[in-house]
Amino acid sequence: MKLTKLIPASLVASALPAVAFAQDAAEVAPDINPYIFTTLLFLIGGFLVFWMAAGFAMLEAGLVRSKNVATQLTKNISLFAIASIMYWLIGYGIMYPGEWVIEGVMGPWFAITSLEPVGLATADAALDYASGASDFFFQLMFCATTASIVSGTLAERIKLWPFLIFTTVLTGIIYPIEASWQWGGGFLSEMGFSDFAGSTLVHAAGGFAALAGAIVLGPRIGKYKDGKTVPMPGSNLALATLGTFILWLGWFGFNGGSQLAAGTVGDITDVSRIFANTNMAAAAGAVAALILTQVTYGKVDLTMILNGALAGLVSITAEPLMPSLFMSLVIGGIGGVIVVYAVPMLDKMKIDDVVGAIPVHLIAGIWGTMAVPLTNDGTSFVTQAIGIIAIGAFVFITSLVVWLILKAFGGIRVSEESEIMGLDKAELGMEAYPEFYKG
Amino acid sequence: MKLTKLIPASLVASALPAVAFAQDAAEVAPDINPYIFTTLLFLIGGFLVFWMAAGFAMLEAGLVRSKNVATQLTKNISLFAIASIMYWLIGYGIMYPGEWVIEGVMGPWFAITSLEPVGLATADAALDYASGASDFFFQLMFCATTASIVSGTLAERIKLWPFLIFTTVLTGIIYPIEASWQWGGGFLSEMGFSDFAGSTLVHAAGGFAALAGAIVLGPRIGKYKDGKTVPMPGSNLALATLGTFILWLGWFGFNGGSQLAAGTVGDITDVSRIFANTNMAAAAGAVAALILTQVTYGKVDLTMILNGALAGLVSITAEPLMPSLFMSLVIGGIGGVIVVYAVPMLDKMKIDDVVGAIPVHLIAGIWGTMAVPLTNDGTSFVTQAIGIIAIGAFVFITSLVVWLILKAFGGIRVSEESEIMGLDKAELGMEAYPEFYKG
Amino acid sequence: MKLTKLIPASLVASALPAVAFAQDAAEVAPDINPYIFTTLLFLIGGFLVFWMAAGFAMLEAGLVRSKNVATQLTKNISLFAIASIMYWLIGYGIMYPGEWVIEGVMGPWFAITSLEPVGLATADAALDYASGASDFFFQLMFCATTASIVSGTLAERIKLWPFLIFTTVLTGIIYPIEASWQWGGGFLSEMGFSDFAGSTLVHAAGGFAALAGAIVLGPRIGKYKDGKTVPMPGSNLALATLGTFILWLGWFGFNGGSQLAAGTVGDITDVSRIFANTNMAAAAGAVAALILTQVTYGKVDLTMILNGALAGLVSITAEPLMPSLFMSLVIGGIGGVIVVYAVPMLDKMKIDDVVGAIPVHLIAGIWGTMAVPLTNDGTSFVTQAIGIIAIGAFVFITSLVVWLILKAFGGIRVSEESEIMGLDKAELGMEAYPEFYKG
Repeated sequence: MKLTKLIPASLVASALPAVAFAQDAAEVAPDINPYIFTTLLFLIGGFLVFWMAAGFAMLEAGLVRSKNVATQLTKNISLFAIASIMYWLIGYGIMYPGEWVIEGVMGPWFAITSLEPVGLATADAALDYASGASDFFFQLMFCATTASIVSGTLAERIKLWPFLIFTTVLTGIIYPIEASWQWGGGFLSEMGFSDFAGSTLVHAAGGFAALAGAIVLGPRIGKYKDGKTVPMPGSNLALATLGTFILWLGWFGFNGGSQLAAGTVGDITDVSRIFANTNMAAAAGAVAALILTQVTYGKVDLTMILNGALAGLVSITAEPLMPSLFMSLVIGGIGGVIVVYAVPMLDKMKIDDVVGAIPVHLIAGIWGTMAVPLTNDGTSFVTQAIGIIAIGAFVFITSLVVWLILKAFGGIRVSEESEIMGLDKAELGMEAYPEFYKG
Repeated sequence: MKLTKLIPASLVASALPAVAFAQDAAEVAPDINPYIFTTLLFLIGGFLVFWMAAGFAMLEAGLVRSKNVATQLTKNISLFAIASIMYWLIGYGIMYPGEWVIEGVMGPWFAITSLEPVGLATADAALDYASGASDFFFQLMFCATTASIVSGTLAERIKLWPFLIFTTVLTGIIYPIEASWQWGGGFLSEMGFSDFAGSTLVHAAGGFAALAGAIVLGPRIGKYKDGKTVPMPGSNLALATLGTFILWLGWFGFNGGSQLAAGTVGDITDVSRIFANTNMAAAAGAVAALILTQVTYGKVDLTMILNGALAGLVSITAEPLMPSLFMSLVIGGIGGVIVVYAVPMLDKMKIDDVVGAIPVHLIAGIWGTMAVPLTNDGTSFVTQAIGIIAIGAFVFITSLVVWLILKAFGGIRVSEESEIMGLDKAELGMEAYPEFYKG
Repeated sequence: MKLTKLIPASLVASALPAVAFAQDAAEVAPDINPYIFTTLLFLIGGFLVFWMAAGFAMLEAGLVRSKNVATQLTKNISLFAIASIMYWLIGYGIMYPGEWVIEGVMGPWFAITSLEPVGLATADAALDYASGASDFFFQLMFCATTASIVSGTLAERIKLWPFLIFTTVLTGIIYPIEASWQWGGGFLSEMGFSDFAGSTLVHAAGGFAALAGAIVLGPRIGKYKDGKTVPMPGSNLALATLGTFILWLGWFGFNGGSQLAAGTVGDITDVSRIFANTNMAAAAGAVAALILTQVTYGKVDLTMILNGALAGLVSITAEPLMPSLFMSLVIGGIGGVIVVYAVPMLDKMKIDDVVGAIPVHLIAGIWGTMAVPLTNDGTSFVTQAIGIIAIGAFVFITSLVVWLILKAFGGIRVSEESEIMGLDKAELGMEAYPEFYKG
């Protein structure tokens, strides 16, 4: 997503050919095809990013212990549903303000989204860009993605309802405000900050919200013992791998759709480059983690490969268009390296991140955002850093406040007995795999 | 799907701009883009609805006990394959009759579908609408969906082959006949019945066929004991959740593709609205079930949330275009409420529906169909009720007859020993999870 | 994929209408829509074929025993990542040589792929066909598919790193060379060999590479005992079924995208026919296996149904466009029959193919390729046989050499203790399902 929703860079270029058939504008219909192509891009991109919600659900269900799987699934489907409602009720209006409440910083809170009337005839339609409903559908999925990132870090010990209340605030308010700073035409976009599809706006933001939660919540019982990290392996690596493949697939929509236009040769060609670069960065992240775990630990680590691929994807998200395939390999590969080193580093800080979401989304997201000036003229490391700090500080502090309020009123952590018994039995009274004996 | 395949509402509107470039029709080529866009819609919509077959398979495999999982998977992939063949051999010809055998009620039974010749040159093509093959592909998936609904209800006790024979009749004859009444231009469409993408034609119809089967088949051994319902929890809620996400994704194709046209600004804008509304209804159904199970039972119930989302989807299917996002939330949310109350109600009637398909597809399907007049001028509750009754009576009675015939000739239920041992060992001689000890 | 990437058959036909709007070429912009439509086809087709990587991963993870699942997942995601890098580094340049090193047989090895510059303005773009990046993205997925086929056959006993080194050679060199013979405009395409989407170029090729590996590697310990085949059932048939559905879905992109053009009425109509035929062949393969296992063994076999569907898909891949739906049913159905008989036949030859990839991809691939002259004028059984033999001999021999070299330097098979303990514990030190007791 470059610039704002309202002024996609490609529109200027496409305006000319669109009417080139006309010798007398009054006589001919406008060219409707760019409108249709771009709307298609939003719809296809949108359903691919929707699919990422399933990817997070499978990844996280696979990486928690079986006694917490049903709860994790409940959180994942519920957070997506809540995001869908909150983004409509408040979020979209905040994110794309017609008029700012605080110039460049905060939009209006009471602009419930409605869609344009049905069945526009060609003659009546304002052929200004693409269907508003398709844009809403696409943007909604990014908001939900931000919330999905949080659920993995806090798994296996957080209470269900406080988590869902946090999700409500995150998707309705926190994400839309920070996203408006860039994609709504706010102060970061004015400054020249560059984050194409959201390495920082979505992924690092979700990571900061998760980090705040992890600090308030504390680590799982028994995770850090006598200065050592106790491994708590995921219960189903097949699901975790499936989740990673789903996320990889969805990312083509995440990055490709963020071109925000597909109705010109230039735009669809850019979308194609983005697909190729996105795939390369994921592959490089996976291979980097594959080789590095072999070299460092003497054994390949599957979960590191999965997270390496995801870190490669997060890394290329800030700029999936301009890099060459070689630069995409470098950017994604460094993302994979980051994961291998950041996971044990977090453990040393006793920040318990169950699925590795902070290394993957926060740290690789920062890396990807800082890498933009390597390939893009007109961007600077300083501006990129300012953007990261602004978003990071805002999301971290507001999240911390919400977590602390939730902790004060009723608490956010399950009891010790519930945690040991497992959240599924203790909180839901149902198990994900009730028939299989557990070890 | 509005009106018939042959006269999509949007064609009239799109006819004008399509030739607007021409000042002299003899000099210029026709505008081929609407044909291509609409064909793309059928293909993308079709592969998304195909994907729903996998969704049903995973949902049902997750909700049965592990001793019946392999059989449930066998049924799901086999029924899709059988539907693909039967719809070609008989169904499509019945559903879209060039000439009726009984006017408005039944088409010809012996019109095997063939596709138009290969490689039409632009000059030769009849640019009347879209590729016939893409329409066939898309419609086929709806036929298969109807059959998928049945398999879940009857799980864990029905014999494999009688089920597959029923599927053959359902997909070859029963579904195509009732669907022709509306989408083939039959008497219901003449009456003004309105069912955009098939809340009744597909979902309630599948539900009625399942209900007839459940009555003939009887409940599982031990399900109802001393006036109480004995819970028989699903063996793999991760799979069930995955199945729900798959169905949610596929539904964008199910409802969006049913616009049946994408080549004008009005049509693609309508498709976009349908995507946004469909997502909202699913989200509302999930949230309704989330809150209601917490309030009613004091504990959140994951399977209710999954079925709530699906009920929201079924509810919006009769009219995903006209409602506002707020009305979509209301319609879908009521769908979620229905599920929470209908599941125990069915149990009181001792109708054993293993996966909750009757509440989700039949009852929410009726609700969605009856809700159409809330948003659509020109429709009436009476006409909607007549349509539901006509389709319900026809599908229920013909299904009942088929089930009774199958029961008379060889039986439809496995032996008591087989049911207790599990269908996988008894019928297939293979298990889904042979290495895991079962509790 | 017919003919070469550079001269798609449809381009000639589409050239005329594309400029038909123009009365004076100098005054009007070129028609950009065919470029956009075809690029979209590559992108959508490409992400569907990407998804097949997940399908292979789930199919194979479901068909191996639980002690080898994590290793199998590691192989699948790693091989895809390696293929993505190797095809960029060497493969694409070999496969589509601007200039041949050996005329019609081998392209240059040092043509690292780069993508065209960003943001082509309409005026500047060479509107010759479609985005090069989209073509690269699409073709890459075929290369990765070839490697995916190999991993299943060799499961449960091959060492991780030798397998990955073989993958490197296969995707960087072996596949691109043989694929260039047809799709790069090499000697097979000159001869009139016909293999639309790769029954032989992809599937049989992958099968030949797998066969060479299986021979060098030998069967699993205990598989063949006292002249009998000992069944080693897959650990998770739900995953295997999911994998099959994923592959079925992805195949619409595999075959449909291989039309290589979507910007004319003729092309998009052909893509539609391909979708319908592909689905029919899969359905027929599944039903054939369903009936045949019942008749032959008295019991339906789920894994045979899954492999039957896949064999149907492989069979129709050589020519998914020209057959009628009825002929697609015949071609795919014979594919399903082949699987049911070929699996035990291989076992008699003591070739241990864990997932049945050789019957599905190699034998059904040959069948599909030999079936082309049944429907296509201008092709001959002799030419088809020559193509199969040329590719088969090349892939088998080069693969055999690579496997033998790998065997000589360090070995390709894990130790007996490792194999019995399971590769997950022995090679990775982690398990896929660590909490479930195994039987």
